Amino acid sequence: MDKLKVGILGATGLVGQRYIQFLHEHKFFEIASLMASEKSAGKKYKECAKWYLDFDIPEEISDMVVDEISTDNIKKHKLDLVFSALPGEIASWEEKFAREIPLFSKVSKHRMDKDVPLIVPEINQEHFEIIKHQKKNRNFNGFIVTAPNCSTTGMVLPLKVLQDKFGIESLHVTTFQALSGAGYDGVKSMQILDNIIPFIGGEEDKMETEALKILGKYEDESKQIASANFKIYASCNRVNVLDGHLEVLHVKLKNDFDVEKVKEEFAKFNPLKDFSLPSAPENPITVLDEEDRPQPRLDRNRDKGMTISVGRIEKKDEKILRLYSLSHNTIRGAAGESVLEAELAFQKGIFEISER
Amino acid sequence: MDKLKVGILGATGLVGQRYIQFLHEHKFFEIASLMASEKSAGKKYKECAKWYLDFDIPEEISDMVVDEISTDNIKKHKLDLVFSALPGEIASWEEKFAREIPLFSKVSKHRMDKDVPLIVPEINQEHFEIIKHQKKNRNFNGFIVTAPNCSTTGMVLPLKVLQDKFGIESLHVTTFQALSGAGYDGVKSMQILDNIIPFIGGEEDKMETEALKILGKYEDESKQIASANFKIYASCNRVNVLDGHLEVLHVKLKNDFDVEKVKEEFAKFNPLKDFSLPSAPENPITVLDEEDRPQPRLDRNRDKGMTISVGRIEKKDEKILRLYSLSHNTIRGAAGESVLEAELAFQKGIFEISER
Amino acid sequence: MDKLKVGILGATGLVGQRYIQFLHEHKFFEIASLMASEKSAGKKYKECAKWYLDFDIPEEISDMVVDEISTDNIKKHKLDLVFSALPGEIASWEEKFAREIPLFSKVSKHRMDKDVPLIVPEINQEHFEIIKHQKKNRNFNGFIVTAPNCSTTGMVLPLKVLQDKFGIESLHVTTFQALSGAGYDGVKSMQILDNIIPFIGGEEDKMETEALKILGKYEDESKQIASANFKIYASCNRVNVLDGHLEVLHVKLKNDFDVEKVKEEFAKFNPLKDFSLPSAPENPITVLDEEDRPQPRLDRNRDKGMTISVGRIEKKDEKILRLYSLSHNTIRGAAGESVLEAELAFQKGIFEISER
Amino acid sequence: MDKLKVGILGATGLVGQRYIQFLHEHKFFEIASLMASEKSAGKKYKECAKWYLDFDIPEEISDMVVDEISTDNIKKHKLDLVFSALPGEIASWEEKFAREIPLFSKVSKHRMDKDVPLIVPEINQEHFEIIKHQKKNRNFNGFIVTAPNCSTTGMVLPLKVLQDKFGIESLHVTTFQALSGAGYDGVKSMQILDNIIPFIGGEEDKMETEALKILGKYEDESKQIASANFKIYASCNRVNVLDGHLEVLHVKLKNDFDVEKVKEEFAKFNPLKDFSLPSAPENPITVLDEEDRPQPRLDRNRDKGMTISVGRIEKKDEKILRLYSLSHNTIRGAAGESVLEAELAFQKGIFEISER
Repeated sequence: MDKLKVGILGATGLVGQRYIQFLHEHKFFEIASLMASEKSAGKKYKECAKWYLDFDIPEEISDMVVDEISTDNIKKHKLDLVFSALPGEIASWEEKFAREIPLFSKVSKHRMDKDVPLIVPEINQEHFEIIKHQKKNRNFNGFIVTAPNCSTTGMVLPLKVLQDKFGIESLHVTTFQALSGAGYDGVKSMQILDNIIPFIGGEEDKMETEALKILGKYEDESKQIASANFKIYASCNRVNVLDGHLEVLHVKLKNDFDVEKVKEEFAKFNPLKDFSLPSAPENPITVLDEEDRPQPRLDRNRDKGMTISVGRIEKKDEKILRLYSLSHNTIRGAAGESVLEAELAFQKGIFEISER
Repeated sequence: MDKLKVGILGATGLVGQRYIQFLHEHKFFEIASLMASEKSAGKKYKECAKWYLDFDIPEEISDMVVDEISTDNIKKHKLDLVFSALPGEIASWEEKFAREIPLFSKVSKHRMDKDVPLIVPEINQEHFEIIKHQKKNRNFNGFIVTAPNCSTTGMVLPLKVLQDKFGIESLHVTTFQALSGAGYDGVKSMQILDNIIPFIGGEEDKMETEALKILGKYEDESKQIASANFKIYASCNRVNVLDGHLEVLHVKLKNDFDVEKVKEEFAKFNPLKDFSLPSAPENPITVLDEEDRPQPRLDRNRDKGMTISVGRIEKKDEKILRLYSLSHNTIRGAAGESVLEAELAFQKGIFEISER
Repeated sequence: MDKLKVGILGATGLVGQRYIQFLHEHKFFEIASLMASEKSAGKKYKECAKWYLDFDIPEEISDMVVDEISTDNIKKHKLDLVFSALPGEIASWEEKFAREIPLFSKVSKHRMDKDVPLIVPEINQEHFEIIKHQKKNRNFNGFIVTAPNCSTTGMVLPLKVLQDKFGIESLHVTTFQALSGAGYDGVKSMQILDNIIPFIGGEEDKMETEALKILGKYEDESKQIASANFKIYASCNRVNVLDGHLEVLHVKLKNDFDVEKVKEEFAKFNPLKDFSLPSAPENPITVLDEEDRPQPRLDRNRDKGMTISVGRIEKKDEKILRLYSLSHNTIRGAAGESVLEAELAFQKGIFEISER
Repeated sequence: MDKLKVGILGATGLVGQRYIQFLHEHKFFEIASLMASEKSAGKKYKECAKWYLDFDIPEEISDMVVDEISTDNIKKHKLDLVFSALPGEIASWEEKFAREIPLFSKVSKHRMDKDVPLIVPEINQEHFEIIKHQKKNRNFNGFIVTAPNCSTTGMVLPLKVLQDKFGIESLHVTTFQALSGAGYDGVKSMQILDNIIPFIGGEEDKMETEALKILGKYEDESKQIASANFKIYASCNRVNVLDGHLEVLHVKLKNDFDVEKVKEEFAKFNPLKDFSLPSAPENPITVLDEEDRPQPRLDRNRDKGMTISVGRIEKKDEKILRLYSLSHNTIRGAAGESVLEAELAFQKGIFEISER
């Protein structure tokens, strides 16, 4: 099988680095173009990326020359699809690419657009259906598929199980978010040493809306996704941790529940097990029984960083479930998620919808 | 006026150090005995305390010889009262002291005892009334007054205002607790670097019960304190911060509310303003309007560490108020709180109840 | 006595904040103008400074309107002198101010200029003499006095004592420098968490040259400062500490020495004791005898942050002395140092040299 | 080939965990007994080890029952050799084991014993020769081979090259040592947050003596190792880094030198390349050219944690070379080192010296 050729938009940033980690020896995909801003264009990747991972840049990537962002690269490198981690201010490039080829993005710009699917592969693959309307509406040869905000991803998998099995009335969630979520320059050391920053711009709103779209239903007649119907109250915070978003969920369920039953449902949740997706975790949700887990440093890399570790599951009241979840924010919450979406789309034959 | 002579039980620990900070040049009190375990007894204070504060041990304290814990010290040093920061395993000393003189404790052992007041001076000074029953029940010459757990103190002042003005239906609270709350040896550096510990033994239970006692009503007929009647759901966590507990409160109120009105009520709350208490903050609650405050490192020392800084007050839903509170856990949440209780007791003539 | 009116160049940065801390209720000086870049000019100080200190902005400063940097402010605010903490790229303003009034700077630009004194008040007040040549050379009404780089200041006081009493052959020094030395935005949190950065641009060169000028001799005939004559080998590093530069010195002395004698000489060193300078520490050098001191968090604020704490003094070989020194880098190593220089200049009548 | 059966003494500690990491799927060795103190004995490994690594305990180890330390385990589990990471206070067990089988230890107790080799495989494999005298002197069937202190290992490989090629006159070294070097409970979080601890008990003495033994010459006639003949002056410090010791070396060489030549010699140093040792790094020394490397977080895991990363190589003076080195303290500086020694001993047929 010939591998599909992929481009990475925003290849030098933290998420770009994770895209490279997941794509550089991929079974389906092959990195053909690393795109970044003018400042980096024309340089070797190793000369312009501030590589933050504790292993070396893969050798074949290290010397690749970075391309300036441009749709010309599609022809030049015969790209079949692109992954995007573009900074918000230049995210308008996304539509230009999607006009020609499929684009998988972890950027927020189009997440809440009515005709754009916001996918978590284990939860809502039927939302891919909306692509056909998107292509029509926008006259795209390609399409846009988006991945949720990193803090949303961390909670939505266990919420899916709770919604299906017990029904959700409302959710209070407080986050402990890692530094890498803000980008390399995002948090200054003098701000966070011996400190907590109790604010992340725009983040609470994203958590309060995206999860409802993801957990919503695609309705073919209306060509729409009907959002799930419960309330989310989020409080978002930055902590002095490199990677790994920890979230405390107090969920009001519609029905009485048993903690052991909840754990069991989490453990057996595995809707993708019949696909053979290289980036899929063995278990989307890992249940930890120790009283003091999950912990970011110890659990973030579990299962390639692609599983959601949950713990401290307690019945706080008749219908109130308390639960901690931990996800790797630049992997499961960003690049790994996006790649998993593309893998699923590939296996389901969604790419063929685009005739190039 | 002659100052009252005080002893400090557990004088070498972190809270003991804060007692010294608040008492060493006090207007009403004078440190007469520093008591600690056998290991330290007989040594100069500076030789056995692992002083962690960033100013030097006050000179007159530095060379004081530490006494072994014993009620003999009452006579020996003519003690009028004692402050206790004893470790849980030897907290049984508290009753022995209280048999003879008043004891103000920040230890958990007696907090929930029916005849022991759990005081926050701005909230429930009428609970001192229960002392008379305590003295009778236990045949004490002195008495025990307790201070709440540090994480309880951080939230109960704003809750008092909300309860009085709007009524409280329920509370979800998630904490970011400082290292000093666990004692000098409590948290190992390898546990917390680049990490969060999502568990503090016994803490959630304390938060869920103590606040209701503090916000309850003393009823003279039943000789009891009737707990406040709402539910608290707490999730407690240790973060890599030296001092200062940050707490995120999602409060369901009984009535609709206006955010500006809430801030106004917080700002004007000052029930102790007519007493002249040396350790009282200018404002028990300080309202911060910046979008990213309170922050532990920047706000914990405000007003001698005795005010509760609140911020990010938002209306999340018709009756759901979101609020962050920050308190200095070893000052307002421990030694400072205890000293403030003693000051109030002194001004109100409570000590005279004890005939010495 | 009328206070002298002072301006602060670069008033919103970290060192600017420390200037305010030292000058806002000063006995000799009065803050008349806070100058900063265009971006801040016209705004209230509290609105444009990212205040990082753990006490509030002094009230009278908080609402002062920031001036854009310009020598017009000299007339407008009747300035008698200015303090400078300008970023390197706009340090050329310094000469413009000095043309009219005295300028005390902690900026590196003019430190090594032949006719500019690089002052540490306890060491080389006779270097003020060179001002007369400077004024003549440059046709200045005012003059420039500079303070050393923060890492130089931390070692040069103990070196002065060693030079005078034992003679110095050479010095190997390795630093552990705090984040605040790099400015608020200087070190990103992702760079330094769980890490050390073994490089600070230009720093080693500064340490290797400045100290020799400071310890050198002013020679009236040649109108020059003859540098001290030994070699310094420096290795500079950034560590995850907020404030306080720790330095490890291995000094090869010219003569055999006794550790107790060294400590004694350090302790009695106090050349400014007959002046009455508000910012002078009680002891320029504080000797700590504990085996594990000095430590940045515990010792940096000693004596208003103006003393150098030394410890771990050991004889490693016949003529090799090992010594740790700790200084507060934004106080003794920057603003406090500069203010102390101005206080000394004031007491010595140096200002009158400038006739305006 | 049948694998040799190994026991691990002190299997639950940090170094014990690294032994497991290196031995659990080893080509030559097979873990047959995990030995630890009474407290852990009889429990499953996963129940008594505070696992601190960010991957899970290998499954086959996880459920192994921990043995109490005893030479009975030799027969019981048919052990061929043991690795030791025993705490100092019970290190006397080492001789009891060595009486029967070979023991490879990273404990300090026997390092400086005259008849015990202190091995760094790339440097002094000829020191194995002394084993024959040891066996005779002590009437051992097995023998003791020791590995150096973690801070010694970090510098001794580049020193070997410098010694051979340029000659060493003296060395000034200052360390930045990671938390894991002190053991799990060694450094409290309150000691090190926003701080440096400028003291590690006994460490400087180890650095100043061990390196000279390692770099010394085995002399068959005298049956002794003649130490290398230069002076080392060490200053040791604890920093807030999880793993990875960074060291700054100022080396006075005997001869003039060229920096590029030094780098070249470092890069080509590889005395073990003809052995096929599973734990040997591809390059014992990795030269980094970036101006700000090596850094602990980014470089400690290079080459399985077994290479020494060096950088910032500069000529500070005619004969003075400055160099930074970084090593993974619990891998190259402890367990990995010890396993590499055993691999080399195995390949060289040293085990057969012991007839059991």
